[in-house]
Amino acid sequence: MNMEGDNCDPDRPAHPGIFPAGEGGQSYHQPWERSVDFPVSVVLPAGGTGERTGLQTPKQFCSFLGRPLISYTIQSFERVSWIQSIVVVVAKENMDLMTDIIQRFQHRKVRVVPGGSTRHRSICNGVLALGGQGEEQERLPADKPKVVIIHDAVRPFVEEDFLYKIAMAAKEQGAAGAIRPLVSTVIATTSEGYLDHSLERARYRASEMPQGFTYDVIYQAYQRCTESDFDFGTECLHLALQYCGTNAKLIEGPPTLWKVTYKRDLAAAESIIKETLSRSACVITGGSAGAVTLADALQKAAGALDMELDVVPDLKGDNGRYLLKEWNFIQVSVNHSSLSEVESMLKDLEAASRALLHPLVVIWVHLSGSDELSVSGETPEPAAIADVASAAKLRNILLYGIQLHQSKDTERWERSVLRVAEITSALIRERSPALVGQLLQA
Amino acid sequence: MNMEGDNCDPDRPAHPGIFPAGEGGQSYHQPWERSVDFPVSVVLPAGGTGERTGLQTPKQFCSFLGRPLISYTIQSFERVSWIQSIVVVVAKENMDLMTDIIQRFQHRKVRVVPGGSTRHRSICNGVLALGGQGEEQERLPADKPKVVIIHDAVRPFVEEDFLYKIAMAAKEQGAAGAIRPLVSTVIATTSEGYLDHSLERARYRASEMPQGFTYDVIYQAYQRCTESDFDFGTECLHLALQYCGTNAKLIEGPPTLWKVTYKRDLAAAESIIKETLSRSACVITGGSAGAVTLADALQKAAGALDMELDVVPDLKGDNGRYLLKEWNFIQVSVNHSSLSEVESMLKDLEAASRALLHPLVVIWVHLSGSDELSVSGETPEPAAIADVASAAKLRNILLYGIQLHQSKDTERWERSVLRVAEITSALIRERSPALVGQLLQA
Repeated sequence: MNMEGDNCDPDRPAHPGIFPAGEGGQSYHQPWERSVDFPVSVVLPAGGTGERTGLQTPKQFCSFLGRPLISYTIQSFERVSWIQSIVVVVAKENMDLMTDIIQRFQHRKVRVVPGGSTRHRSICNGVLALGGQGEEQERLPADKPKVVIIHDAVRPFVEEDFLYKIAMAAKEQGAAGAIRPLVSTVIATTSEGYLDHSLERARYRASEMPQGFTYDVIYQAYQRCTESDFDFGTECLHLALQYCGTNAKLIEGPPTLWKVTYKRDLAAAESIIKETLSRSACVITGGSAGAVTLADALQKAAGALDMELDVVPDLKGDNGRYLLKEWNFIQVSVNHSSLSEVESMLKDLEAASRALLHPLVVIWVHLSGSDELSVSGETPEPAAIADVASAAKLRNILLYGIQLHQSKDTERWERSVLRVAEITSALIRERSPALVGQLLQA
Repeated sequence: MNMEGDNCDPDRPAHPGIFPAGEGGQSYHQPWERSVDFPVSVVLPAGGTGERTGLQTPKQFCSFLGRPLISYTIQSFERVSWIQSIVVVVAKENMDLMTDIIQRFQHRKVRVVPGGSTRHRSICNGVLALGGQGEEQERLPADKPKVVIIHDAVRPFVEEDFLYKIAMAAKEQGAAGAIRPLVSTVIATTSEGYLDHSLERARYRASEMPQGFTYDVIYQAYQRCTESDFDFGTECLHLALQYCGTNAKLIEGPPTLWKVTYKRDLAAAESIIKETLSRSACVITGGSAGAVTLADALQKAAGALDMELDVVPDLKGDNGRYLLKEWNFIQVSVNHSSLSEVESMLKDLEAASRALLHPLVVIWVHLSGSDELSVSGETPEPAAIADVASAAKLRNILLYGIQLHQSKDTERWERSVLRVAEITSALIRERSPALVGQLLQA
């Protein structure tokens, strides 16, 4: 039983590659200082058509939170400054789909190349394209890299520090690959389906991705290998050893390198992304005393819910940075039911294209002034928020409303604030498109 | 790259062991006809304390949907009629916790035994207890089984048909174990951390759980094995081979046998359970024409959302069977805002102890009669549903409300119905405790 690394965190990426570069302001983003001083490119085989599996959509094109898995993987490489280009190799019938994904999510540094009939043929196409040696239509400008990193399209959470280790070891040793401890005992079977023997687990490792090679090693390996290798081989490290005499350096990778294989893995990946997007929010008070009091109380309650809240009067001037770094906003309005503040924020968020890669959550908290039912004019009109929310949803911004009444009864007030915090936390974590535009009661 | 079984279903259990026996009325429950005519018992080692891992709560005691993982696993065995007893082996410090879980979720056929210092010592304790040979406090009535199935507490989705195969093969061959294809290439490393060679994947398999042994084989294996085996061994099949000369029969298991290892696996398990609980719902109309029309329209819309709805006038007489088989109820009320129908249903559900193992969802859909704003007396009072919902939540029943207006404008009406279906589906799938008692607008 491998329990190493078995705790509630190590399979979560420290900074999971879902944040565009330049968002260093995020408290959990530790900028990676080291860089490489030689050209590195990436080949991303994504050739599976799902045909053999009866799956309608190949896993790499399955979506969560409105975006296909492969786009998350591309983003993990795109944000690494020292990676110069990414070649995605897809089946011919998926070339258009892939090109569309790259345009829709505005990926840079990416080129699409048609795949071959097997995994090795696809990777080889990608390598040749990087060297300007592909077929006519896949020939790229001659930017032959020193090191080629090969990765799976369905391992979205690869991190910069590990890519750095692989790139450096590949340059030094000619080849390098990620390994993980075996999670199960490996056994040899007899041809009749009985136990022959079990392997001593400590001597073996699971070979994972990414792997890195100097361009010359991977290029030579594919030049020299046989048709049988192309058709039935699975392990690039093996080709480098057999045909170039290069013993790959093996580096233990984090559990985040796991491969999305089953539907349950898509659910797991979605939960990781959602959790990452739900760690913090920015509360905008408008500066009124009532709103500040509520925001401060929310801040305390949110701590217990494992969420960090920053409180600001507005998003002007220096506070505009929150528009660029936060995935969640809470606008507090006191005693007036106009959505003007929310609408102005939505405009700013749209101007910053902030919801291109992930759905943003905006929660409008309306605080009315007394224990009594609000007098007319203070009560928010449910239809108003529903309309604004419908429009925002088209631009990937999820708007919800929460209504609460000020109370002089301390206990009652604290209960209401806790309810707002709980509802806010649930809305942010679940990011449910079906519930946008609702005005919930705290 | 193992893509075998890689589609959107095979990691989902066909009937995932989360339904108490006797719920054969569920359309997706295929009763398993075969039985075994010899006594079979189960040893469930759950001894991990999480100490080595820095994890506060050992994985088997982590909860989702309000219930610890090990309870789901126990339930998978409990519902198999031909399994006579289950011995759970836990660390001494977790004996009370485990006993409390068994009482709280009313598990039957289960006994708790203290574990040893290693996995093998714990399993051995469980085997001895089954034979009436444990230490004083763990000695059980002499119900020595013919076959012992050993499983992991953190593989909750094991199914009856596979247990049957393991039990039969164990009886015939003395030992049997689940295997799965390798998901990664296995490589041998040099002592310096370089690639030595890679294994030919086709010859090897991953050894998984469950495994089965005749009592005599597993008992003898533990009698004869060395202290070193007890301390460092991991593979029971290996002991059976080495000390009893028994070559285990290996049987390929489904992907559902996967082991919950990382936090992401808990998210995956939760999503599987939630999906299973969200496949269908029962709509109660009260018999009024307006409610029946709405229910029929919902039924159509729900099809597109991949959910099945059964429509009934009430839950009396033969329809009472829905109280025993459904996890989701939608009560439609027309033109009157009283919650009496919902309250009566809640009483029936509580009487049937239906929410013991999973949170039930009840959605109250209130249809008011015209395009105009409802006249006073028809409008449901948000506070009323919030109070009923708070009380129901304490009994693991999640109550939500949805409000919609009848409209003669066909397009508008269809849009409202679709919204009700979308909101209903989201509430049922997400089962969010924070949103209970809300009255949502369709």
